[in-house]
Amino acid sequence: MSSIYDNPYTALKTIFHEPNRLAIMSALCSSADGLTFKELKESCELTDGNLSRHLKALEEAQVILIEKKFIGAKPRTTVVLTDIGRESFVDYLKALEEVLKKAAEAVAAGGEEGISLPLAWIKPANA
Amino acid sequence: MSSIYDNPYTALKTIFHEPNRLAIMSALCSSADGLTFKELKESCELTDGNLSRHLKALEEAQVILIEKKFIGAKPRTTVVLTDIGRESFVDYLKALEEVLKKAAEAVAAGGEEGISLPLAWIKPANA
Repeated sequence: MSSIYDNPYTALKTIFHEPNRLAIMSALCSSADGLTFKELKESCELTDGNLSRHLKALEEAQVILIEKKFIGAKPRTTVVLTDIGRESFVDYLKALEEVLKKAAEAVAAGGEEGISLPLAWIKPANA
Repeated sequence: MSSIYDNPYTALKTIFHEPNRLAIMSALCSSADGLTFKELKESCELTDGNLSRHLKALEEAQVILIEKKFIGAKPRTTVVLTDIGRESFVDYLKALEEVLKKAAEAVAAGGEEGISLPLAWIKPANA
């Protein structure tokens, strides 16, 4: 049976891997009630246009829901993760963790003396 | 002064972020003497065409050197990391580590009970 650990690099080829989408997903994960468009925009340091474009892609992949409501006369857009969105993002993070661990081990194995290796993954030689 | 930690998502926008290039760089890091084209191809599970295309991009960015030699009548291509390639890849890995840590904390903060959270970053509540 195949798992994401067969080739963690292949498992990174998801809709989440683009850095701005990673920022959006990470921000959404921390809030069970979702975030407003304005909150996401500030948290992820994105323009309206960029955020809209990424949200559309994530909505089409069914990993988020976009809710539009009127609060009085003002429209408010709230974005929440779907269950499948949260689960598949956690799977992606596991693959990312595996890849980072492999890379840190490789750097440590091939590293010349004097190279700074402060990654938490790399245990100091005298540990 | 700005550092990669100001916005680790922005720091991911490098030539290394594409999953196949991450695999190539990680493989090269482990070997101070470099790897042959054949070794890289097998290690990264890539076709000749795909590997060539990524190596060309990495060479143009001056993070690798591609050496072509004849061993008798047979051509041999060896790929080695440059010093700047290794340093900038380690910087990229630090940003990736920061992003993964933030995401794992967000998942833990917003997580519903019953969600599986085996990421090493997330400390169990009873630790």
